[in-house]
Amino acid sequence: MAMKTTRKQNYPEWYQNVVSEADMAENSVSPGCMVIKAWGYGIWERIQRVMDEQIKETGHENYYFPMFIPLSFFQKEANHVEGFAKEMAVVTHSRLVNEEGKLKPSSPLDEPLIVRPTRETIIADSFSKWVKSYRDLPILLNQWANVVRWEMRPRLFLRTREFLWQEGHTVHATSQEAEEETTKMLEVYRDVSENTLAMPVIAGRKPEHEKFPGAIDTYCIEAMMQDGKALQAGTSHFLGQNFAKSADIKFVNQNNEQEYAYTTSWGVSTRLIGGVIMSHADDNGMVVPPRIAPYQIVFVPIIKKPDDTSRIMEYIESIKTQLKDKTAFGEKLRIKIDNRDKPSVDKVWEWIRKGAPIVCEIGARDIESSGLMAKERIFIGQPEGKKIVKTDEFINSVGKRLEELQQLMFAKAQKRLQENIRTDIKTPEEFADYFANSNEWIEDGKPGRVAFVRGKWCGDPASEEILKSMKITIRCIPFDQSGTTGKCLLTGKDATMDVIYARSY
Amino acid sequence: MAMKTTRKQNYPEWYQNVVSEADMAENSVSPGCMVIKAWGYGIWERIQRVMDEQIKETGHENYYFPMFIPLSFFQKEANHVEGFAKEMAVVTHSRLVNEEGKLKPSSPLDEPLIVRPTRETIIADSFSKWVKSYRDLPILLNQWANVVRWEMRPRLFLRTREFLWQEGHTVHATSQEAEEETTKMLEVYRDVSENTLAMPVIAGRKPEHEKFPGAIDTYCIEAMMQDGKALQAGTSHFLGQNFAKSADIKFVNQNNEQEYAYTTSWGVSTRLIGGVIMSHADDNGMVVPPRIAPYQIVFVPIIKKPDDTSRIMEYIESIKTQLKDKTAFGEKLRIKIDNRDKPSVDKVWEWIRKGAPIVCEIGARDIESSGLMAKERIFIGQPEGKKIVKTDEFINSVGKRLEELQQLMFAKAQKRLQENIRTDIKTPEEFADYFANSNEWIEDGKPGRVAFVRGKWCGDPASEEILKSMKITIRCIPFDQSGTTGKCLLTGKDATMDVIYARSY
Repeated sequence: MAMKTTRKQNYPEWYQNVVSEADMAENSVSPGCMVIKAWGYGIWERIQRVMDEQIKETGHENYYFPMFIPLSFFQKEANHVEGFAKEMAVVTHSRLVNEEGKLKPSSPLDEPLIVRPTRETIIADSFSKWVKSYRDLPILLNQWANVVRWEMRPRLFLRTREFLWQEGHTVHATSQEAEEETTKMLEVYRDVSENTLAMPVIAGRKPEHEKFPGAIDTYCIEAMMQDGKALQAGTSHFLGQNFAKSADIKFVNQNNEQEYAYTTSWGVSTRLIGGVIMSHADDNGMVVPPRIAPYQIVFVPIIKKPDDTSRIMEYIESIKTQLKDKTAFGEKLRIKIDNRDKPSVDKVWEWIRKGAPIVCEIGARDIESSGLMAKERIFIGQPEGKKIVKTDEFINSVGKRLEELQQLMFAKAQKRLQENIRTDIKTPEEFADYFANSNEWIEDGKPGRVAFVRGKWCGDPASEEILKSMKITIRCIPFDQSGTTGKCLLTGKDATMDVIYARSY
Repeated sequence: MAMKTTRKQNYPEWYQNVVSEADMAENSVSPGCMVIKAWGYGIWERIQRVMDEQIKETGHENYYFPMFIPLSFFQKEANHVEGFAKEMAVVTHSRLVNEEGKLKPSSPLDEPLIVRPTRETIIADSFSKWVKSYRDLPILLNQWANVVRWEMRPRLFLRTREFLWQEGHTVHATSQEAEEETTKMLEVYRDVSENTLAMPVIAGRKPEHEKFPGAIDTYCIEAMMQDGKALQAGTSHFLGQNFAKSADIKFVNQNNEQEYAYTTSWGVSTRLIGGVIMSHADDNGMVVPPRIAPYQIVFVPIIKKPDDTSRIMEYIESIKTQLKDKTAFGEKLRIKIDNRDKPSVDKVWEWIRKGAPIVCEIGARDIESSGLMAKERIFIGQPEGKKIVKTDEFINSVGKRLEELQQLMFAKAQKRLQENIRTDIKTPEEFADYFANSNEWIEDGKPGRVAFVRGKWCGDPASEEILKSMKITIRCIPFDQSGTTGKCLLTGKDATMDVIYARSY
C-alpha cells in the first residue's frame, strides 16, 4: 500500500516512485522531456495562479515573446552565450521531404534558430525599440512559457530538457531602481515558497562564479531537501547595463542626455514542484500543501452492501453541498467525490499516495452516527492519522483545519532546515571531514549526517577548484551577514563573508 | 486622432494599423513570429479563462505534453504527416560551437525532432500506454501551449509561425461517444465565440478535402469578417480509430475482447483575437467586447489647473472605491485610472484606439455637478458617443451597461452575418459572376459586394479544381440542412447538400 522504496533505502528511487505513484508526471518518448499529468499540472496551475497574482500586484503585465531566437541575437551578449551555448536545441530546417519512404529535413534556414533557453537577448531588442525617454520607464513585464535546456541527465521536474516557467523582464532609468526591483521580486519568490508551498528558503546573493551569464548580480532562494541537498528554487538577476549596451537600450533622461538603461530578469519554474515533493513527501507518497492541492478534500464512499450505495452517495453529496460556501486561504474549497468502480481501500491509498490533504471515508455506519472518518495526510502512519468526527463539526472547521495543516507543514520543514545548518565547522579540515560523507535522508528530529554548512568564504577564485573537487557548491551569500571574521572553510585564509555550502540538485 | 487608414481605403492595412495602434502585438525579429503585448495578451488571458472553465466543466483535465516530437512518431499516421510535412520547424542539433568568432550548430541529434505543429501522434503514444481496459475510458484531456507551423505569409494573430492555443485530446470506448465528444466541444466553441467574443458563427462539418489530416470528420465554426471573408474560428476532429491503429491504442471491452479505441482532438488559438478585431474594430481602432476587455472602464482625469489635480484624483479614487463590489458578467469590474503625465486628450484617444469599452473623463466641473463624461466605445464618432451622467447613476448601472454593450456588439455582428449570406444564387454562372468581384469592407446596414453564399454542392472531387481556380473555399456543410434539391453551384449537377462558399483567411 505504501511506497515500494523508502527514503532511507534509496532516496533518488523514492523520488521517482513518488512522482509516478502520485501520477504527477512521467518520462516522454521525446528524449529528456516529461509528460505532466493532471495531478502534477493541477499543482502547477495553483502555483501559477498565486505567483501571477503577486506579479501583477507588483505592477507587471504579461506579454508573450517568441520561442525562437535568431542565432545572431543570441550571440550579442558575450558572457550570456558562453554560459548557454552548451545546452541548446537548434532549428536548422523548415520542411521535411519524403525520400524513399523516410522523412528527411529539408529547406535549410538562412539563419539557424535557437529554441529559447531564456530570452534576455530577444526581449532586449524589443526594449531598444520601445524605450526612448525616461517617461517610457520603467517597463515591467512577465511571461509564462516553456523553455529548453539540453540537459544530459534529466530528472522529472528537477531537470528536464523542456520545462515550464515564468520569466520577468524589466527596464529602469536608474541602477538603484533596477536593484530594488531585483530584490523585490526575490521577496515575492520567498513569500510564495514559504506561504504557498510551505517550503522555507534561505535568501541571498550568488557568488561571482554562480551568477547568471551576463548578470552583475544574481539573487536566489535556496531550499533544503529531505536528503540535505540544496535546491535553487528561484533566481532574480540584476543585469546592470550589460544587455542594454549589447542591444542598445538607450533613453533620454530628465537632463536631456542619452543614457543606457538598466535591466533585470527573474524566474521560477516547474522545478518548484520537485522542491515541494522533496520538502514534504514521505514513505507513503506525495504530500501536497493544502493551498496548492488540486483537491483539498476527497470523499471515498465505503460501500459494504450494494443496497447502501444510494444513501451513502446522497449523504456525501449533502456534505459537499454544505461545504459550498466554506473557504480556506480565502478561496472556495476544492472537493472531489471519488465514485469510481474500484475497491474503496485502493481508492483511499491512491489519494494518500497523491497527497490529498484530507481523505474522508464514509460508510453506512457513519450516516447513523452523523459522522465521518477523516484521514489527514500529514499524519498518515501515525495514531493521529485517523479521526472520527461529527459531520457538522467537520463542515464548520475544515477550512480552518486546512490552513492549520499548511502551517504544520511549513513548521516541520522550517525545523528541519534550522536543525540542519551546521555553524560549528571552523576549519578546512573539519569541513572536508564533514563533506567526506555522502548525503542521506534526514529523519525527523534527528540532524542529518550531511546538509548545509554556514561558514566563512574568502571569495578567492582559486577556491572554486576545491569546491569542484569536493562536488559541493556555495548556494548563496545570505542577506543576514554576521560581520565577524574567521577562516575560509576552503582555503583557510582570513574571511568575513558568511556563505551556505551544500551539495545540490 | 482616428486611424490613418479606414476599412474602406485599404482593409488589410487598416487591420495592421488596428493591431499596432491598440498596442496589441508587433512583428518580432524572430521571422514570422509575433510579440504579443500587454493589451493583446490580456485579451487572450480572458479568453483562456472562460474557455478553460468550460473545458473543465465538461470533465477535461489539463496536462502538458512536450513540444518536441521525434520524427519517427510524426511519421506514424500517413495522412497526418502528408498534411503537415510542408510547414515544420526541425531541430537537428543540440549544441553550438564557436568557430572563429561565429556560432555554428554542433552535436547533430540521432533523430531529428519536430517542433509540434499539433500533437496527436505523441499523445496517441501515451494513450496506448495508459489505456488497458474499458474502465480506463474515457480519457479527457486538454493542453494550453505554443505550436509552430511554418507559414510563409505571416499576419499578426491570423497566421504566425508560432501561436498559442489549446488542444483537447480524448479517447473513448465507442465511436458514438467519441462523435458526441467532438460535437460537444464544437458547441463549447460556439458558445464562447458568441457569448464571450460577441462573434456569431456558423457551425458545420468540413468537406472531405478540408478535413484535418488523419481525421474521419472535422467540424468547425466559421465567422464572417467585416470584409465578407470567412475566418475558421475553431475545429473539432473525430479521428475514429485512425490514430488508435497507428499508435496501437487498444483496450479490453466489457465482453473481454481487444478493441481499438476512438479518439478526438479539438482546438482554438490566438487566431480568435484576429477574429475579434475583424468582427468589431472600426475606423477609430480596436473595439474590445466588455467580457474580455483587460480594463472595462478607464478613468482619465481632465486637469486644466494644476491646483485641481488632487481633488480630481480623490474624486476618481472615491468612484473606484464605490465600484469595488459591482460586477459585470458575474465578475468584479476591471478598472484603470490613467494618471500618466501626458495630455488628457491623447490618453482618451489612446484608450479609444485600444477599444476600452467605457472611457470616463472627469474634470473639476464634474465634481461640482456630481457627474462624469462617459464615452462608450461602440458609439464613438456618433452623437451617442458622449454622455454626461450623474456619478451615482453611473456607479449603479455600469455593470449592467457593460453587459448591454456586449449584447449590442453581438447583435450588430449577427445582423451583418445574416444580411450577407446570399441564398438567391442558383446557377454556376451567377455564382462565377458574384465571385468575379473582390471582397471589400461591408458598411453597416448595406449588404457587401462579396461575402458568403449558401448554396448547393454536389460533393464531386472534380469541383475542387473549380474552387481553386476561383480562389474560394467551402467553409462548411452547416448542421441545419434544408433537404431540398438544386444545382451544384460549381458543376451544375443535381445536388442536395447545402454548403457555405466564401473567400477566407
